[in-house]
Amino acid sequence: MSTYPILDTVNGIQDLKALKEEQLPALCEELRAFLIEHVSKTGGHLASSLGAVELIVAMHYVFDSPTDKLVFDVGHQAYVHKILTGRKDAFDTLRMENGLSGFPKHSESEHDAFDTGHASTAISAALGLARAMRLSGESGMSVALVGDGAMTGGLSFEALDDAGRERIPLLVILNDNQMSISQNVGGLKNSLTLMRTNRTYNAFKRWLNGILETSRFGKFLSRHMETFKNRVKKFFAPNLPFEEFGILYLGPVDGHDVRKIIRYLRRCRKLDKPMLLHAITTKGKGYPFAVENPEKFHGIAPFEVMTGKVSPERQKTCSEVFGETMLRLAKNDPKIVAITAAMPSGTGLSPFAQAYPDRFIDVGIAEAHAVTMAAGLARGGMRPVVAVYSSFLQRAYDSILHDVCLQNLPVVFAVDRAGLVGSDGETHQGIYDPGFLSTMPNLAVYSPSSQKELAAMLELALSRREPAVVRYPRGALPDVPMKTSLSFGQWEIAEPLKKTTIIAHGTLLPLAKWVAKKHGVGLINARFLQPLDSDLIDYFKENEIRLLVLEENTVSLGEKIALAANPCRVRSIAVPTEPIPQASVTRQRERCGFTEEDVTKALLALTEDA
Amino acid sequence: MSTYPILDTVNGIQDLKALKEEQLPALCEELRAFLIEHVSKTGGHLASSLGAVELIVAMHYVFDSPTDKLVFDVGHQAYVHKILTGRKDAFDTLRMENGLSGFPKHSESEHDAFDTGHASTAISAALGLARAMRLSGESGMSVALVGDGAMTGGLSFEALDDAGRERIPLLVILNDNQMSISQNVGGLKNSLTLMRTNRTYNAFKRWLNGILETSRFGKFLSRHMETFKNRVKKFFAPNLPFEEFGILYLGPVDGHDVRKIIRYLRRCRKLDKPMLLHAITTKGKGYPFAVENPEKFHGIAPFEVMTGKVSPERQKTCSEVFGETMLRLAKNDPKIVAITAAMPSGTGLSPFAQAYPDRFIDVGIAEAHAVTMAAGLARGGMRPVVAVYSSFLQRAYDSILHDVCLQNLPVVFAVDRAGLVGSDGETHQGIYDPGFLSTMPNLAVYSPSSQKELAAMLELALSRREPAVVRYPRGALPDVPMKTSLSFGQWEIAEPLKKTTIIAHGTLLPLAKWVAKKHGVGLINARFLQPLDSDLIDYFKENEIRLLVLEENTVSLGEKIALAANPCRVRSIAVPTEPIPQASVTRQRERCGFTEEDVTKALLALTEDA
Repeated sequence: MSTYPILDTVNGIQDLKALKEEQLPALCEELRAFLIEHVSKTGGHLASSLGAVELIVAMHYVFDSPTDKLVFDVGHQAYVHKILTGRKDAFDTLRMENGLSGFPKHSESEHDAFDTGHASTAISAALGLARAMRLSGESGMSVALVGDGAMTGGLSFEALDDAGRERIPLLVILNDNQMSISQNVGGLKNSLTLMRTNRTYNAFKRWLNGILETSRFGKFLSRHMETFKNRVKKFFAPNLPFEEFGILYLGPVDGHDVRKIIRYLRRCRKLDKPMLLHAITTKGKGYPFAVENPEKFHGIAPFEVMTGKVSPERQKTCSEVFGETMLRLAKNDPKIVAITAAMPSGTGLSPFAQAYPDRFIDVGIAEAHAVTMAAGLARGGMRPVVAVYSSFLQRAYDSILHDVCLQNLPVVFAVDRAGLVGSDGETHQGIYDPGFLSTMPNLAVYSPSSQKELAAMLELALSRREPAVVRYPRGALPDVPMKTSLSFGQWEIAEPLKKTTIIAHGTLLPLAKWVAKKHGVGLINARFLQPLDSDLIDYFKENEIRLLVLEENTVSLGEKIALAANPCRVRSIAVPTEPIPQASVTRQRERCGFTEEDVTKALLALTEDA
Repeated sequence: MSTYPILDTVNGIQDLKALKEEQLPALCEELRAFLIEHVSKTGGHLASSLGAVELIVAMHYVFDSPTDKLVFDVGHQAYVHKILTGRKDAFDTLRMENGLSGFPKHSESEHDAFDTGHASTAISAALGLARAMRLSGESGMSVALVGDGAMTGGLSFEALDDAGRERIPLLVILNDNQMSISQNVGGLKNSLTLMRTNRTYNAFKRWLNGILETSRFGKFLSRHMETFKNRVKKFFAPNLPFEEFGILYLGPVDGHDVRKIIRYLRRCRKLDKPMLLHAITTKGKGYPFAVENPEKFHGIAPFEVMTGKVSPERQKTCSEVFGETMLRLAKNDPKIVAITAAMPSGTGLSPFAQAYPDRFIDVGIAEAHAVTMAAGLARGGMRPVVAVYSSFLQRAYDSILHDVCLQNLPVVFAVDRAGLVGSDGETHQGIYDPGFLSTMPNLAVYSPSSQKELAAMLELALSRREPAVVRYPRGALPDVPMKTSLSFGQWEIAEPLKKTTIIAHGTLLPLAKWVAKKHGVGLINARFLQPLDSDLIDYFKENEIRLLVLEENTVSLGEKIALAANPCRVRSIAVPTEPIPQASVTRQRERCGFTEEDVTKALLALTEDA
């Protein structure tokens, strides 16, 4: 007998809808087993997906995608959605080159109503889709599945505030697992807890919701719901932030009781207004290792099913080097404060958080606030270090410019996952920061090419009184000694300057060195993306040096050097301005031309030009 | 007798503190008269400042700046703060070159605890300042004065959520004038209204607050406030979103009753927790023309005191041309939807809003949501146009990249106030968008140099199915005919190409044309900042053209051309990467080198290079 007797019959959502409700709990168990079996091989975002199995089965059972629009916030939890919408057989290609994306992708399926990846976008997008349906006279409901972590993002708040004015159908399903990626923080969490536990009010709500659906009185009530509810709430209300916004609050419902969820969703489908259904779930549900350690299983490499063990990484990651350096520096400087937006472990700050709980701040998934708040700390004389992934730094653009750089406040940004990131694909590439940071006043940008440089740069940045970014890749940098000491604004001559010289930084140094040695050309380690090393630029101009600039990000340094060193001959290899989808980092680098062959070709072309 | 008998004695906050409480209402009236007299001469943000007179007088009367940190959200309402902190005599230089900034500036006074300009940053910054004081062992309270409009921004929400965990003193004063810049929108507004009007609860709160301060029972109660209040609220609660976040809600108080505000603030000063004091004010209070038309008097040019009249602008502004074009295009295309973030009038969309109320969406001060929601509209088949100032577009960086460009959704951005903006100064300069947009995939960027080009570009952008930005300056562009028709991706040869050729776009075309004609060099109107015109780039390379690139923004096009046309000789005049403070636009242009003299010099240098 097959391991998946029911799931085997489900090759699309019509097959799901043909099942009897009684079969769904068993289907959910099969889906869990399927997820664990496959993600243990491919790696992926397991814990979120395990927690949302029943919610997604119920969503597809009740709603009709793609007429109804299902939007998945972040998208980690959309694996079951992919399995149910005809992508089951491709599941072994998850997050691989040319395989299934780890996130919803409209180009992959019409059932992926909106592409996601970053947190807190779903309600905004679903509201746009709902408005589009209304304006086009189309029927259908817009549904956003949102984790409680993503609710801490200001964008979710902005969208709820806007939705409060609307009377069009829009359903937000709050998948409340009391976690974001790490432990959720903040006032909103307390409020959600209150809601979960206020039984009197909930019993009343159940009664009220029942009446609304069935009785004639209910139909009258439904029309007058808003005023009636306001009066009722005076007696029963715990703290209900969603109803503040004109959003009808329903629940809480057990997010693992698929038949109960279905009843709620059917009810929601009939209501003609913005609603929020609060579902309580367990992240990692059904796989004990994931329940015990949801942060580890949030995004995980391939693992052994029976033990939950991942084969250990051998090299020290940049995040670890950063975390250790912070510990060391904080010991001697009581002004150093570390800030993260829901990524204490991912950014390597967990040891710091344990050692210096008073000087560690986790603001939740709220990058803009992390940065503006850090600016306040800096104005107050502290030395804040904001640790954040490059891709998420994008969310704080204006805070960096308006609150840190224009005021010239000494905030240090430790930017992790800079460069190509591999299997997370286009939404998570850390390739934009050099470009968008390059016009910000007063800002220094450091790019280490080794572990030692990373540590030295963080120390240097903290010793200076100016805004600074130290950016380093996912995974490891070489553990090699620094040949020349670090001096602010100075590039390192890594191989003696020649008529033709390569300029590279960060991750691309080893490749550049290999090619430079092989072809006897010069090599510069551009330790600083800004400011440029003006002495070297002058040298290039005076000596008509031909320059090949390599950068694992969208073109920035190459352009700056082309203008600053004009009319030197300059060629650039950079990440093209197009979405770079999932693949191994090695394959993504190949695609961008970061190979011995392509670099050699560019060197030859540079020589031929002359 | 002096017009300002009390104000004349106040040359610093110690003078204010020396006044008797009974004198303060009269002082407030004098401050209003002073504001109207002076802003009528200089222009400025009058309505907000008139509404916040009593709040600011009370803040300085009770708190001790700079030990206590006073942060003003946006900063428009900080004029009275400037007058009271020793800058009264400089008030006639408001928003002028080398004069007083229209916003708080730490470099101007130690009493300006944090620089502001964009909305919704104050609570984050104040929280950072509060944490810094706690960590440094300093005493003092952090106070943020925030308008209700700024509360609709997600950043305010993120900060409140974070503050909810804190037990350190932090006071948010909500200046609720029921407006943002235009009429406030959204669910939060309804909630604020509810609070204002729930008399039973408020009467109880007044009693409770009274007790807390005076009685022994009150002191007991204060310690157990949180649980006690939760129970009490079941009977009395209207919707109280702030208390959801663990923020103690106080008020509402009449924001024009200075003595009552002082009593509240004294109470707040003794409480050791995050608090929000809700003050009800009238925007424009004390000047009938401003009360009647607060949007007009939000930021205003010099006006006649007795009539409220501003001398009329003669030229049609870009905003008006945009608004008219939208009306024309929307008539034939029912898919066009216009979106603004609280700027219907400023962006020229008011006529559109009247003509097509169903297709006009004002989301409040929430730029990120405006953009992600527009992406949802586009996915749903609509043609959304997001009208936004360049400086505020910065707040939506990740939404543009992650939600629009990566998905290649046809959202059109009408980016107003692009380039140098004059008296608003550094925080409002529209000089960063060409740089930060330049690495976004799939995005076209149009830069019109005339009214006709603006209209034609908007039409062209809407006829294509891709993300697009049309950016145009504050004020007017020349009303001249287009000599060559607009074709996507093609630059216009405005003066015949020569061995030396100027490339300019937008506002700088007239200056470039003048110099080009005078010196007999070529001129290109770079109608598109992206994509580059590759045919012309090839021509430059083949013919070794020397190029001078002019751009009224931080360098972007100049660098791109230097790399793309390498090894052509390229020089660039752009806005330097440093904060450009307030002055007239003409003076700001001079500072950047956009003068006949500097352009001529650069041309000569380019020729000498060869």
